[in-house]
Amino acid sequence: MPEYKAPLRDMQFVLHEVFKAENLWQTMPAMEEVNRELADAILEESAKINESLIAPLSQPGHEEGVKWTDGVVTTPKGYPEAFRQLAEGGWGGLSGAPEYGGQTMPKMLVLLFEEMLYSSNIAMGLYLTLTSGAALAIASHASDELKTKFLPNMYSGKWAGAMCLTESHAGTDLGMIRSKAEPLADGSYSISGTKIFITGGDHDLTENVIHLVLAKLPDAPAGSKGISLFLVPKMKVHEDGSLGENNGVHCGSIEHKMGINASATCVMNFDGAQGYLVGEVNRGLQGMFTMMNYERLSVGIQGLSAAEAAYQWSSIYARERLQSRAPSGPVNSAGAADPIIVHPDVRRMLLTQKAYVEAGRAFAVYVGKQLDESKFSSGEAKTKAEGMVELLTPIAKAFLTDKGLEGTVAGQQVFGGHGYIREWGMEQLVRDVRISQIYEGTNGIQALDLMGRKIAANGGQNLTVLIAEMREFSANAADVSGMDEFLAPLNESVDNLESLAEFVLAQTKAGDANAIGAASVEFLHVMGFTLYTYMWAMMTRTVLNGESDQGEEFGQAKLHTARFFVQRLLPQAKGLSESIRNGSASLMDIPEEAFA
Amino acid sequence: MPEYKAPLRDMQFVLHEVFKAENLWQTMPAMEEVNRELADAILEESAKINESLIAPLSQPGHEEGVKWTDGVVTTPKGYPEAFRQLAEGGWGGLSGAPEYGGQTMPKMLVLLFEEMLYSSNIAMGLYLTLTSGAALAIASHASDELKTKFLPNMYSGKWAGAMCLTESHAGTDLGMIRSKAEPLADGSYSISGTKIFITGGDHDLTENVIHLVLAKLPDAPAGSKGISLFLVPKMKVHEDGSLGENNGVHCGSIEHKMGINASATCVMNFDGAQGYLVGEVNRGLQGMFTMMNYERLSVGIQGLSAAEAAYQWSSIYARERLQSRAPSGPVNSAGAADPIIVHPDVRRMLLTQKAYVEAGRAFAVYVGKQLDESKFSSGEAKTKAEGMVELLTPIAKAFLTDKGLEGTVAGQQVFGGHGYIREWGMEQLVRDVRISQIYEGTNGIQALDLMGRKIAANGGQNLTVLIAEMREFSANAADVSGMDEFLAPLNESVDNLESLAEFVLAQTKAGDANAIGAASVEFLHVMGFTLYTYMWAMMTRTVLNGESDQGEEFGQAKLHTARFFVQRLLPQAKGLSESIRNGSASLMDIPEEAFA
Repeated sequence: MPEYKAPLRDMQFVLHEVFKAENLWQTMPAMEEVNRELADAILEESAKINESLIAPLSQPGHEEGVKWTDGVVTTPKGYPEAFRQLAEGGWGGLSGAPEYGGQTMPKMLVLLFEEMLYSSNIAMGLYLTLTSGAALAIASHASDELKTKFLPNMYSGKWAGAMCLTESHAGTDLGMIRSKAEPLADGSYSISGTKIFITGGDHDLTENVIHLVLAKLPDAPAGSKGISLFLVPKMKVHEDGSLGENNGVHCGSIEHKMGINASATCVMNFDGAQGYLVGEVNRGLQGMFTMMNYERLSVGIQGLSAAEAAYQWSSIYARERLQSRAPSGPVNSAGAADPIIVHPDVRRMLLTQKAYVEAGRAFAVYVGKQLDESKFSSGEAKTKAEGMVELLTPIAKAFLTDKGLEGTVAGQQVFGGHGYIREWGMEQLVRDVRISQIYEGTNGIQALDLMGRKIAANGGQNLTVLIAEMREFSANAADVSGMDEFLAPLNESVDNLESLAEFVLAQTKAGDANAIGAASVEFLHVMGFTLYTYMWAMMTRTVLNGESDQGEEFGQAKLHTARFFVQRLLPQAKGLSESIRNGSASLMDIPEEAFA
Repeated sequence: MPEYKAPLRDMQFVLHEVFKAENLWQTMPAMEEVNRELADAILEESAKINESLIAPLSQPGHEEGVKWTDGVVTTPKGYPEAFRQLAEGGWGGLSGAPEYGGQTMPKMLVLLFEEMLYSSNIAMGLYLTLTSGAALAIASHASDELKTKFLPNMYSGKWAGAMCLTESHAGTDLGMIRSKAEPLADGSYSISGTKIFITGGDHDLTENVIHLVLAKLPDAPAGSKGISLFLVPKMKVHEDGSLGENNGVHCGSIEHKMGINASATCVMNFDGAQGYLVGEVNRGLQGMFTMMNYERLSVGIQGLSAAEAAYQWSSIYARERLQSRAPSGPVNSAGAADPIIVHPDVRRMLLTQKAYVEAGRAFAVYVGKQLDESKFSSGEAKTKAEGMVELLTPIAKAFLTDKGLEGTVAGQQVFGGHGYIREWGMEQLVRDVRISQIYEGTNGIQALDLMGRKIAANGGQNLTVLIAEMREFSANAADVSGMDEFLAPLNESVDNLESLAEFVLAQTKAGDANAIGAASVEFLHVMGFTLYTYMWAMMTRTVLNGESDQGEEFGQAKLHTARFFVQRLLPQAKGLSESIRNGSASLMDIPEEAFA
């Protein structure tokens, strides 16, 4: 298995040259201590620890897996020590609130750390990022008392966190959950129920796991309006912060999965466990929204990360593996054969990965920028960014992970038969990334969220803002010499996106209740393609406008890859658009019995 | 894990009603004893043994895997006994030559047995079908003496077969192999070398394994023109047919793979093993061509089979899993939620699987028909069929398996989180089917074979014949009421395919050595979509013309599924076509260093 090397140069290009992060940070009071030097130092430290400590544990962890024996969960060899080192390095508290020991780094930067972490080892990464996610929900919604008691130890990685939503009969439809919360005399609650698919629900990395649990009060309204959120520690925590006995929180078993074998996916039993309300009664789902936008971007980044690793390894393999000759004649006459990178189809597979990964990284940073502005800016900028976060989050989750699977499969294919063999590492990437399309809301649910809640429900308001931004960018960039070949496809894509949304909204208005669901997945993809075209236009403008210091070769490679994207990948959006325009009838007219 | 049920009705629809197999068999002297009754009896017996014996071994075999200990390969529990029962049922000799105990059944029928076998258990199926494949190469090219000595025991399943082509440095490029064949005094050869990725190279299912090995004579020309084919038994076979000592054929290790865990993928060492020439010296690759067309179709069917199983299980799950409500209001008011099949996007995932599987089955039978005509017909019919076999085989291999991955991933997605858990069986389908895109010539190589050897090399002659056939079909079907909606997309697709081929050939003629390789994968997909449109047009004509006895509901479901195919899936071909028309420059202009 090849080594992972953090793509620092491309990260710096995107962060500093395309999005000029430092200029943005200077406008935000909370970011006043963040500058380019600090950001680069963090990226470099992140590269070191991920390359040298986290990545080497990935394959052994895949082979060894997590064990569950007599109720005790054991992670693979080396995982507890590595987690400790991550924690001690402060990586768990990067985006934490400063008053409880967090570092308040901007998401634009933190997500690049997450990219490296997941490229190195998704299974390992999850323990840390779910802890950060749980801490974020606590920081956003819990009482000061709970924050003081739990956040410092979560930021420091002394304790881990987990999110307990799903039950066996309630996944997408959380309104159906049965876990109960009975009020106790001291204002806390007794939590009982069984949760499944709990990532990092139990393990041996930390002395405590802080669970955020969705449950219903006895008198709660039916459905999703009766769900409350509780903080439930695995081990009781005394007033002085020391740990007491087990709080009635036990791992009943772990799942055997397709991948992320080193991640403990637990069935968690809560037997009268003492829990503390987070946020308001019956508003537990709302309490999770802030966190979900972060988590969903983080899951999207898992797709990007796996695809980055697949690209790195398959591009090395394609330059080393000798087999057959180039169509236009030998390029390595002295050797027994040419490296397979001479073949147009091998290049197609590599460029497909490269074009999606580089646009995906830019898009992730772009969404991170919206998250930062929605949190740290004020006035109009904040309002606009909040709308963008709502609109873009489902795309970041679903498009990045769908392209993650596509990229890892393409990388595996470059390896031929060796791609199917475990020791080469490519099959693990495919298996690990596959879950990212499913958990944290399946990609179909993301698409429904995008088309239904984020577009149709507000008459396309946020989409209109985004479209105006893309048109403004295009108009401003038109002066830059050489931009035509990238702006023409952008303009066409934006026009198409607009008319497509109008088409679906009109169908809905005309009474087709299925119009949104029938269009949603293809629409999300068309919008993803449009946004990636926007990212490529931004990146090529940066190069053509002389705003990049990465050198001639780097800039030329960007232009080449952008060209490949618009010429060879973007046309897919046309087919998808036509499918949408053919309407919902062909999906809905067939009777249910025909599927028997 | 749900049970597999052979789709007998759809198989009978395709075989008897769409392709009217019996009429064809009556024109073939070798098929004079084959009729509809016999065919149906074979299909029903096949369904029984696969559903009850082979399918239940799939998941335990996935979990247990093959073991290699001190040179001995052990298959999972129950596999030797199941193989024995398959063998005793005569399933290994279905298409074998009658003079050596084979049953000479038509490929159109045998491939439906293979579909059931692979849907039940790809790993198990491979042991049998590779034996049939090796037997076919022997029957086609070996001396009568070798045939008499080896074929009867291979047809009866007493001995298994394996194909030994790949070496660690020579996969696609077989001209680079190093295995040696030294002539011995008695006319046989001493074979030495190491082969990798040998499916069923060694195991405990049979007392002997008959290897077909590619090797080079000492004075052989360099490259692929110096390759000869040898029959090399694992255990020596005495004149009287009894077994002697080991023939210097040993399994050095087995691979640990992404899937097909119960299939032994062996490193095979030949240490001066005694081998017998099959066919002519230095024409070993040619000797394999006959077999390869059968094997490649067989691998394609693995894609179809996995997708069929995924469709069956996900359509059951979608009708049983209760979650959320239908967009147009509850349909199961008494229940806690509606079955998820009410959601347009779940239907999209099911219909995508269904539309590809049913067209794929028809296409596989269509290719089987060409194989039968090329073998058992005469005159013009035979000549035309030979051309069609050449043209269609790479599509059958690659398109069926690419759609196999797409289908299994869609089926897995329907299951949500449960799709990622091993016990539900969906992740195994994805993992098992993935190899079918890689082995027996990667799908990229298939596309190159199609566009280069099968189209460009003969100026598109075979493609012209196919296009004429599709146009003739369309003209003849135009009279049938209701066919417009299926013929219009067919006509458009055929025109597009023709102009696309002309475009690529013109680029090639104009001196672009990379035009073929740059277009090949997308072209294969456009051609696959066109052929599936043809299949859907044939199937809907059969229904609309009143030529199906499967009843009203069956016919309506066909029309609905065809409509979904042309409206929602076929548009993808337009995007792919546009990519091709954008040419090879964006693939080739970027320097190799840009991938570093």
